[in-house]
Amino acid sequence: MPEDSHETFLADFALMSTFGATAGGGVERQAATPEDGQVRAWLTDLFRKSGFEVHLDGIGNLYGLIEFSPGADYVLFGSHLDSQPMAGKYDGAYGVLAAFHAVVRVAEAHRAAGTMPKYNLAVVDWFNEEGSRFKPSMMGSAVYSGKLSIDEALSISDSGGVSVRDALTALDAVGDFTLPPIAGYAEIHIEQGPSMDDSGVKIGAVAATWCAYKYEVAVQGEQGHTGSMRMASRKDALLGAAHLITAVNELVDDFEQETLHTTVSELYVLPNSPVTIAREVRLHIDMRAENTEILDRALALLLAKIELLEQRTRTAVQFLASNTWRSGTFVEAGVKLVEDAADELGHSHARVKTLAGHDATNIKDLVPTVLVFVPSIDGISHNERELTSDIDMLAGVDVFERIVHAIVTGALD
Amino acid sequence: MPEDSHETFLADFALMSTFGATAGGGVERQAATPEDGQVRAWLTDLFRKSGFEVHLDGIGNLYGLIEFSPGADYVLFGSHLDSQPMAGKYDGAYGVLAAFHAVVRVAEAHRAAGTMPKYNLAVVDWFNEEGSRFKPSMMGSAVYSGKLSIDEALSISDSGGVSVRDALTALDAVGDFTLPPIAGYAEIHIEQGPSMDDSGVKIGAVAATWCAYKYEVAVQGEQGHTGSMRMASRKDALLGAAHLITAVNELVDDFEQETLHTTVSELYVLPNSPVTIAREVRLHIDMRAENTEILDRALALLLAKIELLEQRTRTAVQFLASNTWRSGTFVEAGVKLVEDAADELGHSHARVKTLAGHDATNIKDLVPTVLVFVPSIDGISHNERELTSDIDMLAGVDVFERIVHAIVTGALD
Repeated sequence: MPEDSHETFLADFALMSTFGATAGGGVERQAATPEDGQVRAWLTDLFRKSGFEVHLDGIGNLYGLIEFSPGADYVLFGSHLDSQPMAGKYDGAYGVLAAFHAVVRVAEAHRAAGTMPKYNLAVVDWFNEEGSRFKPSMMGSAVYSGKLSIDEALSISDSGGVSVRDALTALDAVGDFTLPPIAGYAEIHIEQGPSMDDSGVKIGAVAATWCAYKYEVAVQGEQGHTGSMRMASRKDALLGAAHLITAVNELVDDFEQETLHTTVSELYVLPNSPVTIAREVRLHIDMRAENTEILDRALALLLAKIELLEQRTRTAVQFLASNTWRSGTFVEAGVKLVEDAADELGHSHARVKTLAGHDATNIKDLVPTVLVFVPSIDGISHNERELTSDIDMLAGVDVFERIVHAIVTGALD
Repeated sequence: MPEDSHETFLADFALMSTFGATAGGGVERQAATPEDGQVRAWLTDLFRKSGFEVHLDGIGNLYGLIEFSPGADYVLFGSHLDSQPMAGKYDGAYGVLAAFHAVVRVAEAHRAAGTMPKYNLAVVDWFNEEGSRFKPSMMGSAVYSGKLSIDEALSISDSGGVSVRDALTALDAVGDFTLPPIAGYAEIHIEQGPSMDDSGVKIGAVAATWCAYKYEVAVQGEQGHTGSMRMASRKDALLGAAHLITAVNELVDDFEQETLHTTVSELYVLPNSPVTIAREVRLHIDMRAENTEILDRALALLLAKIELLEQRTRTAVQFLASNTWRSGTFVEAGVKLVEDAADELGHSHARVKTLAGHDATNIKDLVPTVLVFVPSIDGISHNERELTSDIDMLAGVDVFERIVHAIVTGALD
């Protein structure tokens, strides 16, 4: 690619990163916040200036379309612009901008050559991939792929009681567009883990996903005075929750190193007063592994630990809701496409797994899907210090351009 | 006392308990909320109808005054109308209403007899005793007794960023009244612990207070992706906090049973997202004991446990602020006054300690102060199921009337 298209990409990336920029060099653009609205408006403008048709569907997914052949199916490329709180500027946003630039280049090449690709082209910003404000994560792609009903999604509220419907409406981000049938999907994303950075690999061809068990849990206790209530009579929900958090963490001790990841990172205390023993704690358990055998064994262990901690703290642990991702593989033709593109451009590559969830994980169950990774330095993500070098970003865009070119001419058929 | 004054008290108590009433039979009237404003307006009306002058000071303490002898000092009686979230209806509110009824009876007796008490009479609703919305607790009496500056108190904000100044101003509850010098203070309160209920004692003469060490603590970690970040690299602030909570709880194992009470009941997670490892947890540690030797020993143990958990979880624990209550005793003449009043009325009594803090704890450092307890069934408090029987409430008012009568005629001089 010519130098100037690299410079344009980096300039666009720098501008995009100003929306919701944090003092620590990251961004905060949780789904359907004003900052998310600002970056979406910027993308809309970018689409229009480049001759894309812009559309919104009923869950706020934002599409830019280039039609070559009226009536032909589309192929779709994208990721998400929303972020975690105090997050990095690469997660998702890099993939949306890379998709846009790659599609622009491929469309220009076809126009310049006077050729007609087999499929029309579309770029998407999936709504609410992060799920920090509105759970579950990967919401826009879940609705698109029929895994979540639109009515259910629109009715979900954040911790302040604001619904997805109201938040999207406030941004004027609810449309009625239905994307025509798509023949394939590709996404490029930062790895968010350390494996590629550790081994010095530039391009990751994602061959499989880890699976996840996620649980909403309530620990039930009873209110009392922190000063005067006897220790032996207490039913302290926060003490029960503390034992649950350490139990979740200690599950990994029973498994081979780094084959199981377990976390509690979201927690609410009721009533959360300094002098009243907590009556209830709600928390979210996140367990991930390469296969469900590991997760099933971990869950059984956890249930045994919970029985003990309930007795010890006189609390009751209730599982309120669960969300399960099965592990899965990406189509071999797509993985090969990534390897070929990297080879042609002289970039080192490896087959990798994704431990994080991505919109591609939803879409791969619908149509042939390709997921490409570029390295995250030290594997840091969901953190303002998240970093992918400019050189690695540009290498990814060039590889992704080749992938778009191949898919649009029928390589995944 | 005649039956009808008992009936009037219970009718007033029932009416008072409707302000901020919860479905579970309790009340929720956190300081300077609309519900607190409603019950304060009701008390203001009750004061006025009974011929009290009503005044507000700069921190929202609400006074009702009966002047017998212009220029004479006052004696003050009261407690607080604010509550914890989802709390009982007796805590504080019983004491304000009992003080009002007792003062009305004593004033009427003097008027009927044409006698002139030595002191003028005042009833107070101390602002924000509970401290659940605005820390520290016992705020109004702390400002009154010079332990907390009014500017500092007015600048304190709740978790939503609303200051005491703004919340009080919204209720039109900031005045410029300064109560004339007081010669004594008395308060009646529910015990909030089980000792009197267990032993069947009707009247508690509070002889001493437990002491407390309270700490605002931050556990520092680092954000990361819950799915993809290696377990061995994590600095999970919520995991660190969980170990801290269990460490605080396990302190009591090193002490004689029920000589040390330790609790964490307030906690905030940042960023509190289901898929981002917590970068920081803020929590409040509450430790109480009969004497500071126990607390000092517990604190030293806790610091050693914190060093271990910091290493284990790669987090850092910072003590941000502390609030200390020394233990103390109430004047012997006041304790004797309670015992004599109970004896005269034929109620069983005992000398007790208060494990909870009360406004009386602040005022006793200023003037001779009496604190009286009535039993809490099963010691339940800060809970909708908090209960003191009507018979015990009425016995308390009758005893308190005798105490008011004695103090107003110089018994504490």
